[in-house]
Amino acid sequence: MSAPIPTAQWVGEECGCVRLLDQTLLPTEVRTIDCTTVDIVFEAIRSLRVRGAPAIGVAAAYGVIVGCQSKLDCSRAEFDAHFDQIVDYLATSRPTAVNLFWALDRMRRVHHTLPADWTSTQITQRLLAEAREIEAEDRAMCTAMALHGTPLLAECTGVLTHCNTGGLATAGDGTALAVIIEAARRNPALKVYADETRPLLQGARLTAWELMQRNINVTLICDSMAAWVMKQKRVQAVIVGADRIAANGDAANKIGTYGLSVLAHAHGIPFYVVAPSSTFDLTLPSGDGIPIEERAATEITHGFGRQTAPTGCAVFNPAFDVAPAEKITALITEHGVISPVTTDNVRRGLGK
Amino acid sequence: MSAPIPTAQWVGEECGCVRLLDQTLLPTEVRTIDCTTVDIVFEAIRSLRVRGAPAIGVAAAYGVIVGCQSKLDCSRAEFDAHFDQIVDYLATSRPTAVNLFWALDRMRRVHHTLPADWTSTQITQRLLAEAREIEAEDRAMCTAMALHGTPLLAECTGVLTHCNTGGLATAGDGTALAVIIEAARRNPALKVYADETRPLLQGARLTAWELMQRNINVTLICDSMAAWVMKQKRVQAVIVGADRIAANGDAANKIGTYGLSVLAHAHGIPFYVVAPSSTFDLTLPSGDGIPIEERAATEITHGFGRQTAPTGCAVFNPAFDVAPAEKITALITEHGVISPVTTDNVRRGLGK
Repeated sequence: MSAPIPTAQWVGEECGCVRLLDQTLLPTEVRTIDCTTVDIVFEAIRSLRVRGAPAIGVAAAYGVIVGCQSKLDCSRAEFDAHFDQIVDYLATSRPTAVNLFWALDRMRRVHHTLPADWTSTQITQRLLAEAREIEAEDRAMCTAMALHGTPLLAECTGVLTHCNTGGLATAGDGTALAVIIEAARRNPALKVYADETRPLLQGARLTAWELMQRNINVTLICDSMAAWVMKQKRVQAVIVGADRIAANGDAANKIGTYGLSVLAHAHGIPFYVVAPSSTFDLTLPSGDGIPIEERAATEITHGFGRQTAPTGCAVFNPAFDVAPAEKITALITEHGVISPVTTDNVRRGLGK
Repeated sequence: MSAPIPTAQWVGEECGCVRLLDQTLLPTEVRTIDCTTVDIVFEAIRSLRVRGAPAIGVAAAYGVIVGCQSKLDCSRAEFDAHFDQIVDYLATSRPTAVNLFWALDRMRRVHHTLPADWTSTQITQRLLAEAREIEAEDRAMCTAMALHGTPLLAECTGVLTHCNTGGLATAGDGTALAVIIEAARRNPALKVYADETRPLLQGARLTAWELMQRNINVTLICDSMAAWVMKQKRVQAVIVGADRIAANGDAANKIGTYGLSVLAHAHGIPFYVVAPSSTFDLTLPSGDGIPIEERAATEITHGFGRQTAPTGCAVFNPAFDVAPAEKITALITEHGVISPVTTDNVRRGLGK
């Protein structure tokens, strides 16, 4: 069972739009937004209407098509310049998740290979096929990650997860959450603790919602309670997604992940990171090179529709942090399990 | 400089009321509430209009006087029964902070010593003097703790704190926050990182507010960012308060404190707990015996006027956790610094 409304889908054929489930309104409102211009796609990514590294990649790929459509009646040179502009623009929507750049680069590579005599319409058709392929592959990768990861949770009665890594973050059932969903299918007594994940509460709004829709036993906690949940032995594993993974296995993910990796290690609990190969950035030897997005202070000071901090209060709001490879028990990709997490094992695990 | 409006004060003489600064409305609204009945005092403690272990003790002591006043025209036996009833009732307002029971026991002990021929009015006058004494002592203890603790922060350029332990939590300048305030007076460049402290955001609403009022350099973060702040070496100490400390030094404090103690230890950063001797419960050999209050799910699911989790979502909401003695670098009381934290040193440090 997937989320009832796809996270990101193409509506129409060569002439169409990207329909996104507006995740900023969940869980109290289920509403879609039809992105008919590149600006709307850009805004939707920037403001987290669509979020989750793989889903951002899918949305951006379809966003390129929305842009191509707006410029079909022009010369090839004009079209190509326009294409480059769209891709460059969408690449600035968010800085950390590498799947965004991966998907855009893939669209760019396909574009470069197309015959000089193709019309803009032919090119757009080919690019739409590529975007659909990115979506289909992402779906298949979710299934593969779930199958590789589930055996690692076989002995667990409880697991802890952070942020949202489910059907709302991907085209399929998710990354870490797909593993949890499959583990819960095999062991319906499995208890999932979901960090609410401040400041934007993706755990409370999205993960709890997805798991409840599937009748999986989920308990919501504040992020600050995770350590106490570990101490009380309520969970035997922590499993999260990633937004970018360096060559050595250092994994950037939603803020709070670094702390969880340290806490899991201190409690002797395995810490798993689940992500498709498109999340790896092998150009970076370690996580030190991963750019960390800092977001607006108002996410913290006015998070719940009400001012909850003094006017003018200084805020530090990094959206991500980096779990170091040595604190990660295993990386799970669509190709299998990488453990221990070393540069050599990452390369081998990705078949490079 | 104290907070502009006292956290808890007696207004009037023998006939008066407890005036509390309603902390649930801060920082956007500064409003007091006059507690003219024991029920109002009880509700104010239960719903955190007044909070912070020492301030709860002061409010409860004055709450006893409010109760005594309502029954002055009766026999001594009736008055004494009424007194016991008030004290027993107020003791059920919250379970974890031991200062509540400490203050009520102190009122009870004074009551027991009073001559049989004293009138209800005479007794109430004597008890009011005792409640005022509890308040005055608390103020003096804050000053003493600040002086004992400040040298420990002498080398720090940044410190991290959790929840609110300032003038709003005590009759004086606070426990941990009094130390920070004095350290910032000596080193105005000191940078304070304040955890927002979910679910009720005492850090965002109260600590940031108090520090900004004093022109102290405060930066608000989400609880999940504390580990990253440590990793980036932005802080060289963590300093918090406590709601109950067992004989071995295990310290119960706002949920999230346990995790901070583990994280500080993992980063080689000292972890300090500041509390007056009234916070110690030497009847408990370790923190295992400290009752941990669990509060309503709605604090997490409907935190600030808006639903942020699915309807019916299961929630685990412990209000406190326990930092183990071995992760506490030092305990700071009004008597001095206890370090290393052992049962023997705690006993000696309290002069027992």
